[in-house]
Amino acid sequence: MTASAAVVLLSGGLDSATVLAIARQQGFICHALSVDYGQRHAAELAAARRVARAGGAREHRVMCVDLAGIGGSALTDLRLAVPETPTTGIPVTYVPARNTIMLSLALAWAEVLGARDVFIGVNVLDSSGYPDCRPEFIAAFGALAALATRAGVEGSPCRVHTPLIALTKAEIIREGTRLGVDYGQTVSCYQADGEGRACGRCEACRLRRAGFAAAGLADPTRYQRP
Amino acid sequence: MTASAAVVLLSGGLDSATVLAIARQQGFICHALSVDYGQRHAAELAAARRVARAGGAREHRVMCVDLAGIGGSALTDLRLAVPETPTTGIPVTYVPARNTIMLSLALAWAEVLGARDVFIGVNVLDSSGYPDCRPEFIAAFGALAALATRAGVEGSPCRVHTPLIALTKAEIIREGTRLGVDYGQTVSCYQADGEGRACGRCEACRLRRAGFAAAGLADPTRYQRP
Repeated sequence: MTASAAVVLLSGGLDSATVLAIARQQGFICHALSVDYGQRHAAELAAARRVARAGGAREHRVMCVDLAGIGGSALTDLRLAVPETPTTGIPVTYVPARNTIMLSLALAWAEVLGARDVFIGVNVLDSSGYPDCRPEFIAAFGALAALATRAGVEGSPCRVHTPLIALTKAEIIREGTRLGVDYGQTVSCYQADGEGRACGRCEACRLRRAGFAAAGLADPTRYQRP
Repeated sequence: MTASAAVVLLSGGLDSATVLAIARQQGFICHALSVDYGQRHAAELAAARRVARAGGAREHRVMCVDLAGIGGSALTDLRLAVPETPTTGIPVTYVPARNTIMLSLALAWAEVLGARDVFIGVNVLDSSGYPDCRPEFIAAFGALAALATRAGVEGSPCRVHTPLIALTKAEIIREGTRLGVDYGQTVSCYQADGEGRACGRCEACRLRRAGFAAAGLADPTRYQRP
């Protein structure tokens, strides 16, 4: 069997680094895609470059979309603070339609590459209540993809793979560790500093830290205040 | 009744200029969105600015997404020629996942604005066979939008309006003319020159010219060779 090409959405965080390792292990030639949407944590994109290289991606593309121009999220609007204590409902770190946009860009690139597979590291258990991390959202995107593209019309639509969707953070970390992911290269923090050091207080940090603890593995995260 | 906000996708072409007029006539406060995706016909974006102003849009935003970097279409890759005679199947002017990406960006902006309505000028009759101009694609995007966003989760999902979807080009032109659209400001040509003058030979030009003829109206298009 010839290896197939896949587009892997890669944020530079823990989840997508694990997804890249899983896609590689499944035999895909991985084209990593990061989206520079004006996120305040630019260290994430530097991490994505490291992770793509270490994870054996064939190539790594960064596409720019100016979501900071429209604002509406604490991740793109510096006037909105990143919460450092648990909140209820959809948090202010939700970026409007972010996963819809990212999957659309992945779909476009997949079509140009002739790839029929897109991977995304969404996860419903430890997902902070984001609407676009739920299985029903992914299913709806799959239905859309089948109608949206030349490949779909020609009968071989793009599949959206979400290998982490039903895993806990601890299970994700165990699986990635088994596959050799170096989580010290990843940045999950919503307000990492220029060196990629984590705040330790935002929800992304809390979920990540609890995941390492639950997995019984040492946390390699570099924190701003040890 | 207070006027509602809507996001109107505005390319600068004939169809979307008509959609803006229809949305305004329905009483919406229109936020016009153009997407600079690296299209070869940059004159289209200049036209979009004129049309937004003349059409009474509250504001006009241009979002950039570098689809030229991935290529795969004669509209974004200068090495691929724009066909000047009729073709069969999905033409090379199809831009992979373009309407999926544009609707995603419109959805994001609508969510930030608190708008519940998005307008797009897709049209199935004179649409060159693009997969993402079909009613089933629009229905699938509507289903996705209901799941993708905070507004959807909270029970008031964004609606996608396609007032032109079942009209012929002649019917679109008649309706726009009735609403006062100045089609001389619009640019439909896939390879318009820097002044916005049309080639008269590409499929967009042929559909447009035939539309004015069928509507029995004078064609105000400026051609490169009269």
